[in-house]
Amino acid sequence: MKAYIEKNKERFFEELFSILRIPSISSSSAHAADMKRCADAIVKLLLEAGADSAKVYETAGHPVVYGEKIVDGSLPTVLVYGHYDVQPVDPVELWKSDPFEPEIRDGAIYARGANDDKGQLFMHIKALEYLVRENRLKNNIRFILEGEEEIGSPSLGKWVEEHREMLACDLILVSDTTMISDKVPSINCGMRGLTYVEVEVTGPDKDLHSGHYGGAVLNPLNVLCDMIGSLIDSKGRITVKGFYDDVVELDHEERAMFARAPFDKQEYMKSIGVDELSGEEGYTTLERTGIRPSLDVNGIWGGYQGEGAKTVIPSTAHAKISMRLVPNQDCHKIAELFASHFRSIAPKGVKVKVTPFHGGNGFLIPVSSRAYKAAEKAVAQVYGVAPVPSRGGGSIPILAQMQGILGVNPLLMGFGLERDTIHSPNESYLISQFFKGMESIALFYEYYNE
Amino acid sequence: MKAYIEKNKERFFEELFSILRIPSISSSSAHAADMKRCADAIVKLLLEAGADSAKVYETAGHPVVYGEKIVDGSLPTVLVYGHYDVQPVDPVELWKSDPFEPEIRDGAIYARGANDDKGQLFMHIKALEYLVRENRLKNNIRFILEGEEEIGSPSLGKWVEEHREMLACDLILVSDTTMISDKVPSINCGMRGLTYVEVEVTGPDKDLHSGHYGGAVLNPLNVLCDMIGSLIDSKGRITVKGFYDDVVELDHEERAMFARAPFDKQEYMKSIGVDELSGEEGYTTLERTGIRPSLDVNGIWGGYQGEGAKTVIPSTAHAKISMRLVPNQDCHKIAELFASHFRSIAPKGVKVKVTPFHGGNGFLIPVSSRAYKAAEKAVAQVYGVAPVPSRGGGSIPILAQMQGILGVNPLLMGFGLERDTIHSPNESYLISQFFKGMESIALFYEYYNE
Repeated sequence: MKAYIEKNKERFFEELFSILRIPSISSSSAHAADMKRCADAIVKLLLEAGADSAKVYETAGHPVVYGEKIVDGSLPTVLVYGHYDVQPVDPVELWKSDPFEPEIRDGAIYARGANDDKGQLFMHIKALEYLVRENRLKNNIRFILEGEEEIGSPSLGKWVEEHREMLACDLILVSDTTMISDKVPSINCGMRGLTYVEVEVTGPDKDLHSGHYGGAVLNPLNVLCDMIGSLIDSKGRITVKGFYDDVVELDHEERAMFARAPFDKQEYMKSIGVDELSGEEGYTTLERTGIRPSLDVNGIWGGYQGEGAKTVIPSTAHAKISMRLVPNQDCHKIAELFASHFRSIAPKGVKVKVTPFHGGNGFLIPVSSRAYKAAEKAVAQVYGVAPVPSRGGGSIPILAQMQGILGVNPLLMGFGLERDTIHSPNESYLISQFFKGMESIALFYEYYNE
Repeated sequence: MKAYIEKNKERFFEELFSILRIPSISSSSAHAADMKRCADAIVKLLLEAGADSAKVYETAGHPVVYGEKIVDGSLPTVLVYGHYDVQPVDPVELWKSDPFEPEIRDGAIYARGANDDKGQLFMHIKALEYLVRENRLKNNIRFILEGEEEIGSPSLGKWVEEHREMLACDLILVSDTTMISDKVPSINCGMRGLTYVEVEVTGPDKDLHSGHYGGAVLNPLNVLCDMIGSLIDSKGRITVKGFYDDVVELDHEERAMFARAPFDKQEYMKSIGVDELSGEEGYTTLERTGIRPSLDVNGIWGGYQGEGAKTVIPSTAHAKISMRLVPNQDCHKIAELFASHFRSIAPKGVKVKVTPFHGGNGFLIPVSSRAYKAAEKAVAQVYGVAPVPSRGGGSIPILAQMQGILGVNPLLMGFGLERDTIHSPNESYLISQFFKGMESIALFYEYYNE
């Protein structure tokens, strides 16, 4: 595709800039008309690139753009996910050029959305154009480009649910993340899942004076701390009964592949201001955040939190606790295991309530899969170096949701770099990454169909 | 004194009512003039009762009334502490009669301050009157009656410090508490002390995303819970190194005396809404709150406490922790022991800060002491039943402070009952307790001087 890019690059810039100029800020109702205008512009780009059809679907929030190129119903189908909405631009005075008037400086495109995600989704539209015009497309492609990613995708799940038959596919392909560096390309082949609960421990039915009752009555704050303290053992393992039952251990070879990712412990510790790392025994830091589950208290409160001293034994104590899960662990099953374990460790004399919040399963494209192998070959060819498989420690709730509804896994081929400072002033996207991304995507399809 | 009371009771009521009519609410600046008026009225009562001198001392807050009757400098001196300020009266619509227009109903005086503490301090003034007029006083008596007890005595400590020579005494005598019941009279011979600290645990230097870092970084909330959980062992003992070194174990006989206090476990549990009691192994509930130290978390906070879920590993976690101490434990020493223990149990990778707040030592009048024995005999004679020694689980900071400055212990002969509902609407004071209190106090002096 290199030659095609070289020939058409000025037009590519102009087309991308035309959508970057639209301030499609989803969080601000003042931009509702811009959202619609941007969705329409993207429909036009899809059709011009060779989609059979493309249209705007209204939702309760901002519209969804859907387009497709069906070569043959019997061929594999890839569903490309992206989003055309962008973050706000404040503090706007820190921008060196107008966030909605794209500018090329030092080999990069500067604009809000240059990378996240207009620049990245645009690569997919141009890969389609190339494959169609050169008559090289041997699979079907569907596009879902939403307008609410930056506000948590409140409408898309329902829309996907309602259109699940139309969206049937073999793979979800996404470019909305970063790679380790342009010297160490990486492909994200999995994200962790999440179970999130709120717990409440109740002791006496009213707040008590700690002088009059201290020593004779179970204090819910002490009890909650004690219970939470017991959830992780001295080896960094989660003690919830049955918690690890469905965790798949990676074999030596796979761990060795992950271990190729560069990691500077001193740099990592410095970046978060700690002088010691900690976690499950027998695993590296990247493994602890990528391929192993974890348990964190995300919030805790109870009793007196103001200035000075108040001698109270409060009636209740609360905490929010989340568990990151690895693929194959089910978020609902883990919520249940947690709840019964937590109740079982409560001492007599307190009542325990566990309220599960939203959660989601992790997802995983095995490095041995057809999709991963195709992406690996494509990126290796374009970058001249084999990519490192990586795993995301967090969750992307909308992808987890789509995976749940459509029953297929997402593969995350992201071409952003840390330097792009998405969500901040002076967001940019390196032109070299922009073009290498297009090329990798087009090549991906060729290897995927081999 | 019975006959004297019988002869003078109408005058006693009228004199008490004259001060109950003054709305000396210390928490409201609107009542500043009433405070002054009440202090003046009490000076007058002291002088009429036979004090050599009595006057109002201005402070930064409400005035202190000081009066004395010095029989002979070589005789023992008792310092009577009380307070003439009262609680607010809201919700005033729940009062059956005007809180500042005393009324006698069903054998009790109803008014704000009827018991707490105007009614109780008045008994001491009348005991003085009786002993002086009947020429029976064989010791010196000083009175400190403050106007800021209900707002935490902010000025009295300084005033006592400044007048410590004038206040030299052998005993502090206080009637500002309750007894178990009028069938089971009790004398409070000790209160617990207090050490109160705030702790802070800091991990990363900023809040982190629990997806990206969960499992690899020490979470200050998990760490704080774990550390707090370890402060009390499975036998209910506090694990702070050296914590029990200065605790004096009571002998069998003394414990048997305390055990005479009636205690209904079911009733106690019902009153606070729990179905199980807990605490240090080998001690009863009353011992756990009276003669044994305790440790309670009074407040805890950190991370996300709002609605729903936020996946954060916060940079810091906080808690307020207090320890109730028994006499002979030093509150400053315990604060230091706690701080070094708490630091010693922190894992590498977090920083710990311990900030001590105010504290105070406990105090104790041994049941074998002259003062306790005299009170015991007096109460036994008036009530026809031997009183039970009791210990207060809480602290009375101003008494702990006075004890520290003057170097003498307080003895708490309180004649209130639970039914008096001090601090609430319809505060009252049983006339029988009012008169028995006067009688007990007068007799106390006689036995004290034997």
